Amino acid sequence: MPPRAARLGDIRPFHVMRLLERARELEASGRNIVHLEIGEPDFATPQPIVAAGRQALEDGRVHYTPARGLATLRQAVSGYYRERYGVDVDPNRILITPGASGALQLALAALVDPGMGVMLSDPGYPCNRNLVRLVEGVVRAVPVGAADGYQLTPELAAAHWRADTAALLVATPANPSGTLLSRAALAELAELCRNRGAALIVDEIYQGLTYDAEDITALAFGEDIFVINSFSKFFGMTGWRLGWLVVPADYAADLDVLAQNLFLAAGTLSQHAALAAFSPETRAILEQRRETFRQRRDFLLPALRELGFDIPVTPEGAFYLYANCRALTGNSFEFSQRLLEEAGVALTPGIDFGDHRAGEHVRFAYTTSLEALEEGVERLRRFLCGQA
Amino acid sequence: MPPRAARLGDIRPFHVMRLLERARELEASGRNIVHLEIGEPDFATPQPIVAAGRQALEDGRVHYTPARGLATLRQAVSGYYRERYGVDVDPNRILITPGASGALQLALAALVDPGMGVMLSDPGYPCNRNLVRLVEGVVRAVPVGAADGYQLTPELAAAHWRADTAALLVATPANPSGTLLSRAALAELAELCRNRGAALIVDEIYQGLTYDAEDITALAFGEDIFVINSFSKFFGMTGWRLGWLVVPADYAADLDVLAQNLFLAAGTLSQHAALAAFSPETRAILEQRRETFRQRRDFLLPALRELGFDIPVTPEGAFYLYANCRALTGNSFEFSQRLLEEAGVALTPGIDFGDHRAGEHVRFAYTTSLEALEEGVERLRRFLCGQA
Repeated sequence: MPPRAARLGDIRPFHVMRLLERARELEASGRNIVHLEIGEPDFATPQPIVAAGRQALEDGRVHYTPARGLATLRQAVSGYYRERYGVDVDPNRILITPGASGALQLALAALVDPGMGVMLSDPGYPCNRNLVRLVEGVVRAVPVGAADGYQLTPELAAAHWRADTAALLVATPANPSGTLLSRAALAELAELCRNRGAALIVDEIYQGLTYDAEDITALAFGEDIFVINSFSKFFGMTGWRLGWLVVPADYAADLDVLAQNLFLAAGTLSQHAALAAFSPETRAILEQRRETFRQRRDFLLPALRELGFDIPVTPEGAFYLYANCRALTGNSFEFSQRLLEEAGVALTPGIDFGDHRAGEHVRFAYTTSLEALEEGVERLRRFLCGQA
Repeated sequence: MPPRAARLGDIRPFHVMRLLERARELEASGRNIVHLEIGEPDFATPQPIVAAGRQALEDGRVHYTPARGLATLRQAVSGYYRERYGVDVDPNRILITPGASGALQLALAALVDPGMGVMLSDPGYPCNRNLVRLVEGVVRAVPVGAADGYQLTPELAAAHWRADTAALLVATPANPSGTLLSRAALAELAELCRNRGAALIVDEIYQGLTYDAEDITALAFGEDIFVINSFSKFFGMTGWRLGWLVVPADYAADLDVLAQNLFLAAGTLSQHAALAAFSPETRAILEQRRETFRQRRDFLLPALRELGFDIPVTPEGAFYLYANCRALTGNSFEFSQRLLEEAGVALTPGIDFGDHRAGEHVRFAYTTSLEALEEGVERLRRFLCGQA
């Protein structure tokens, strides 16, 4: 066998995939499983988007688009920023990508030389660390907790700054915590990076999914910020694999060339379908769904707290609750396995999001119906009673 | 502005993109342009594939698939290898990817440590060089010409071998030359890599598009070979962005994890649509199209030779002719620009495929109708007469 590159050994698998596989086995054998581990909305793609996709298919839109995406779609994204967020973003600064994965990969490839550091939060979305490793960057994970709202705050970033810091990567709303960065925090992070000659990359893939909190964009705080976004979560287009990247104007031409090399272009049908994502009809559907997510959160959060899960910061976005389960178990990974086998409830163990107090945490995703959430909570209650 | 990573400056743009942009400008101003530069079939996606895509849309297949792709599609690809090529390939060795770009990126990330060499041919497909650069590998371009059939032969590979060679990347049929590697050459290349502890990566994205020559796969020559393929060219699914990668069994699990990180999964609709790519109905359409490509080649090749283009090796695959134009011009890039402006014919200059005698070559793509090819040849004839 040909020898493997060193990076291959450094890419950590997602433990939840094994749990998911086991859950599917149990289901195949007749068991009912409540899925609270899935990072994907349970809703179908909104009908106007599906209809636009069908129309594109009928019109024979099956050839390549330009590497940075359809001009009409980049204009539509720009219009969305203006209308919803009051921010002017030149369409030339927008690249349409195959999912947010493609967007983050472009940004990291453009910014991170081998051996340079990328500061990010622990816990955080696991692919981020792995994509930094792929460009031979060095992950500088900063432990965050309840005191910081589970976010890489300006204070933490300044305190952990190193000479080799090339970029800061933050997410708002964040996975796994569902917490947000405030306007003030984003402005300060942008200023910090600007002053120290590093890049600020903001992952906004859960943008739009906020509850009780203001829905904002980091693009309001400077034209030198890299923003990653996606049609997957808020717009309900996961399997269409479509996202976008906003870059400083100076980077647009080079990233167009990089995109040509990395993926040629995002899918053509997906792009045509996404043109319907910003219509009033779609927006009304998405607002309804946001309300549904809010109801689920408003049920699940107090129910879990009552069961003994510690969720000290109220999550105001995305569809996740990151819960400290120290009062219930000494090992959240083993706890997740037992919950699946014995109670038929699937969760994501903290270990998938980093190392910092990972064994004390689990993530709940409310990407299933209120009825399923109620059943899940009831199963948890019985499991914990039996255990006590 | 945050500083750029060094690699960004090393990624070369495709010159043909500027020519294409200029061609669009000319068209917008009313000029008619014959496009002989486009590396994409002019045919629509075959109707059975479109119908399967439409059905998947109606069935609401819009959520993520597993990272390595639908099990049914991996089985279908395996069945295709067995039936058409007589080679057994375990579906577990097959990963479905977002285009061949995703497949090549996976393979290079898995095999090439920073500073290690990847040997490939000059001329060759330009993204290959850039993707090697992206993983911090070193491109070892081997000049090839008519004597080698424009291919990195076993003899050339052995002669250019270096201590740091981690992988050999060959393509059959090749872009830009349209030439093939024989069974014997593939077997020898596999043996060479095996003996020297390097990986053989074979780009087969034009597989199926061969004329007068045997249609083969490198997978017949060992289970340690990495093969890249695509639904874009032969199957007519460019804008669907779907390809696949075959890996040695030992690599399958790690590459599944890498795929999760790099792109989560290929597009869901595209995968469901592609299930119809291997049906007898689709295959009949594809065979007709292959015959059409052959007719175009059989017209264009002698016509260009008659005009003074030197094409010493008859291209037996893909849809390209790589022509030496030294008898007609001293600078193929300037020649391409003048041809576009003065004759309304768009070609790809040799410089897009490497450095070796690039200024003496242009690439013709026969991805347009026989009528357009005839018109293109007539315009070339008039242009060359006027020039003489």
